[in-house]
Amino acid sequence: MLTKGQRTRQAILDVAADIASEHGLESLSIGSLATATEMSKSGLFAHFGSKEELQLATVDHAADVFVREVIAPARSAPRGIARIWALLDGFLDYVQREVFAGGCFFATTSAEFKNRPGTVRDRIAERLGSWRSYLEHAVEQAQELGEIDADVDARRLAFELNAFVQNAEAEHQLFGDPRVFGDARDAIRERLESLRIQARAA
Amino acid sequence: MLTKGQRTRQAILDVAADIASEHGLESLSIGSLATATEMSKSGLFAHFGSKEELQLATVDHAADVFVREVIAPARSAPRGIARIWALLDGFLDYVQREVFAGGCFFATTSAEFKNRPGTVRDRIAERLGSWRSYLEHAVEQAQELGEIDADVDARRLAFELNAFVQNAEAEHQLFGDPRVFGDARDAIRERLESLRIQARAA
Repeated sequence: MLTKGQRTRQAILDVAADIASEHGLESLSIGSLATATEMSKSGLFAHFGSKEELQLATVDHAADVFVREVIAPARSAPRGIARIWALLDGFLDYVQREVFAGGCFFATTSAEFKNRPGTVRDRIAERLGSWRSYLEHAVEQAQELGEIDADVDARRLAFELNAFVQNAEAEHQLFGDPRVFGDARDAIRERLESLRIQARAA
Repeated sequence: MLTKGQRTRQAILDVAADIASEHGLESLSIGSLATATEMSKSGLFAHFGSKEELQLATVDHAADVFVREVIAPARSAPRGIARIWALLDGFLDYVQREVFAGGCFFATTSAEFKNRPGTVRDRIAERLGSWRSYLEHAVEQAQELGEIDADVDARRLAFELNAFVQNAEAEHQLFGDPRVFGDARDAIRERLESLRIQARAA
């Protein structure tokens, strides 16, 4: 059970993550958030002492939402190709459902902070790196299960598969063309099918 | 030959595009640019009447640079798979050479403006759309030449190939890992080779 204070904090961070997914973390301030949540600035200061603390808390919160919406559901799929698919299909679904108002929170904020060294940038990179590692690990599991050839470079395959979902997100946001989600799913499915080791008759 | 006024304008826009590639177009203002170029605000006003005009001129200038650095050199390659490769290899090279200080100008600014409706966003989308169309057209040429099967969906293949270069740019900027360029080139080459129609003996 969350305490009332924790629930309030979650509610504030939901708003903050939505704003940041649309306009970036630099658009977040105690003042702008006070307006958006109709809370007092002093009330917000009690939760977040500074703009940077607020930005870091928002990154962590968005990562928790991503785990809840994408990673956790995929864990119920069987290991191997089924789980790789569940992760990527779930990622596309999370963008399509607009879990964050402005598309993928991490797409917006990583582009915003890539040239701003500091703790906020490091935190974004750490969280995005976790996603990449998790996807790579899912590829390795498929190799251990004998579904994908052990000679395939897991890091590179994770790079390719992630590229399809990231580019679908970017192109959808910019061009508003929903066909990119079908493009990405077709590309992922074809790539995975091309690598599947066929069970052989003895 | 460019006039002195045109040369000055080009020099200003080179600085503006570098700044925007690092920190976004919203960080551009007549004031910030006056500081960076050591010119007077009134001198800059003579070239660009408003912040929006400056932003639009910077987008157009960056697109011209992209054409000069990526599109034009690829036009010297033979049509077909050779030209598709030249376009994508040249794109990766342009990111690696840091033609713009902050990575790909359009990666930064499209993420920045995706949720800011208006003429600047529309201009960015138009320019990025031109690149996507050009790549798709190169795929169609390869199909007309019989190098790639006519049944392949050119739009989708362009989506996939573009995804590899965009993701290499994004991951390089965020993680600083130069292996992503090799990953992207390997992925592109393998994908193109997998589609190449073998010349058949009669």
